[in-house]
Amino acid sequence: MEFKKLFIPGPTMVHPDVLAKMATPMIGHRSKDASDLQRRITEKMRKLMFTSGKIVLSTSSGTGLMEGAIRNATAKRAMVFSIGAFGDRWHELAKFNGIEADIHRETDGHPTMPATVDKYLSMGKYDVVTITHNETSVGIMNPIEGIAEVIRKYPDIVWLVDCVSSLAGAKVEVDKLGIDICITSSQKALALPPGLALASVSKKAEERFEKVGNVGYYFDIKNLIKYIDKKDHQYSSTPSLSHMFALDFQLDRIEKEGLENRFIRHIEMAEFMIEWANKYFKVFCTPGFESMTVTCIANTRNINVADLNKELGKLKMQISNGYGDLKDKTFRIAHMGELNMDDMLEVTGAIEDILKLK
Amino acid sequence: MEFKKLFIPGPTMVHPDVLAKMATPMIGHRSKDASDLQRRITEKMRKLMFTSGKIVLSTSSGTGLMEGAIRNATAKRAMVFSIGAFGDRWHELAKFNGIEADIHRETDGHPTMPATVDKYLSMGKYDVVTITHNETSVGIMNPIEGIAEVIRKYPDIVWLVDCVSSLAGAKVEVDKLGIDICITSSQKALALPPGLALASVSKKAEERFEKVGNVGYYFDIKNLIKYIDKKDHQYSSTPSLSHMFALDFQLDRIEKEGLENRFIRHIEMAEFMIEWANKYFKVFCTPGFESMTVTCIANTRNINVADLNKELGKLKMQISNGYGDLKDKTFRIAHMGELNMDDMLEVTGAIEDILKLK
Repeated sequence: MEFKKLFIPGPTMVHPDVLAKMATPMIGHRSKDASDLQRRITEKMRKLMFTSGKIVLSTSSGTGLMEGAIRNATAKRAMVFSIGAFGDRWHELAKFNGIEADIHRETDGHPTMPATVDKYLSMGKYDVVTITHNETSVGIMNPIEGIAEVIRKYPDIVWLVDCVSSLAGAKVEVDKLGIDICITSSQKALALPPGLALASVSKKAEERFEKVGNVGYYFDIKNLIKYIDKKDHQYSSTPSLSHMFALDFQLDRIEKEGLENRFIRHIEMAEFMIEWANKYFKVFCTPGFESMTVTCIANTRNINVADLNKELGKLKMQISNGYGDLKDKTFRIAHMGELNMDDMLEVTGAIEDILKLK
Repeated sequence: MEFKKLFIPGPTMVHPDVLAKMATPMIGHRSKDASDLQRRITEKMRKLMFTSGKIVLSTSSGTGLMEGAIRNATAKRAMVFSIGAFGDRWHELAKFNGIEADIHRETDGHPTMPATVDKYLSMGKYDVVTITHNETSVGIMNPIEGIAEVIRKYPDIVWLVDCVSSLAGAKVEVDKLGIDICITSSQKALALPPGLALASVSKKAEERFEKVGNVGYYFDIKNLIKYIDKKDHQYSSTPSLSHMFALDFQLDRIEKEGLENRFIRHIEMAEFMIEWANKYFKVFCTPGFESMTVTCIANTRNINVADLNKELGKLKMQISNGYGDLKDKTFRIAHMGELNMDDMLEVTGAIEDILKLK
């Protein structure tokens, strides 16, 4: 296998000390040590998410917990605001579970604007809204504060936010924003291996859960919470203890860096990448809504991205082609997790050399 | 944290070399390396499962894939044969997904007999049967060959078998038995950390999937298979690459030991434990149906299992109390995965000393 420095929007690079924690020997998942582990993670995740809500871990990708969220929260009808592939997924998750849902899909490159959310919610048809905070397929970070202001006007809405590729890279103040279920994944800005999803759950969401049936088993968030509460932070199924060992340790590393420092590091990398992209190509999305964790670059020079990646591979680096239909029209460079400004200088310098950009 | 030699029915001990593979650096999950990894695992799992069917990996516990299996396979009505907590779980999985299902529950300690299966199937009401091959809550291994003979008479039945705590410890010849979906988990006899579930899927099961709707997303086995086939052994969501690295390596270790040697090692440990249990206590279940991977021992001496475990803990060993209602009435000693006869001598010797058995 070839190991490269990953500038793809997940899995991201994992620090060697964190990787080493993945190799921790096993303990019983019904032990006091297991309870303590989950309790420590809960307390640290609350700080990272700026919430006093419940914290749920799921041995799955983020998609699984998104499925659980929309299935548990929708009593009436869900409104999905999509700006790309991962927004579309919310609608598929609803559809494949027989949940009533509508979707408003922006054309690629455009964010979800608060006014759009307001327009739909004013109809009074919906009790759930889903938003993708950071859409990696187009490199957009949605204006979450503005959207939060709109949603605040509708007290019956349970608000689900996909923060899979933003949390721990950008500041997401869950309680202040009023996010009811905030979902993230281990393999993005948290910089852990893939295999674990996490969510915060508000009181309002918990109350909603009581009114919804036919929610399945593995992703039944209501029952997960009940089990955690009753069994001293344990899970009904055996969780991925390896990921939990690594997460516990990584959350300490994040605290040591300092949350604000971490967010500033991500902003600096993003600002550098946006400037670089606009100098040689063009950032794909509407200006002002660029993602702080991944830059999606319009392929204005019509370069062969696969060839570029092959050349970067010789230097042990890897970037990402465009997603889906945008495969050749864009390419993406992630700047999250463990990466820093030196890495961004390295990858952009290499691209400048390979493509002979000036 | 305290690390002990685990004689609990999962998570089991993981070999240090396998643990080390959990710390493999990340690769892109859309890379050729990722495809190759999954392809290698598929070929090796087919040998271990004695099948030419499809192999599906799921980043979840076994419960998740069991949920997917019963949800994908049941077009009409499922018949659940339960002999304990994990058999009951099949029925809950059906119920919580609005799937029509009946359950026949043996009293604790009794196996599912082929004649019982025949009685229900002869009614012609069912198109799915679930069997727990090895029920850890009571320490029973069901007579799978006899049940297979019965099920063979009913060509419309899609047969789901929970081999979570038996596969890789006992011989399960999937194709010969006619199992349509055989499910296992990483943290039992496979001796990997928890966090990955695996299943084999027969042609008949695949055909059934085409007739069933409302099957969700994350555990939609039909779509998982389509994605694997179309995208050269990749997954729609990011899988737990760490577990896949470790599994790939562990399957080589298992092949090196030799499948038959491995099964014999498990039989020898089981026979020793059964004899030991009957000498000092009594094996909990009907004689002749004892599990080959975990012995459930009736607490005929009314010992305090928690105290025993505390004493064993001082010697860095851990056994398991009884499950659920059987908590104090039984205790369990697992003998699967990496454990061998020396380990069984060690743990039983320690118990004899602690309890002053003679």
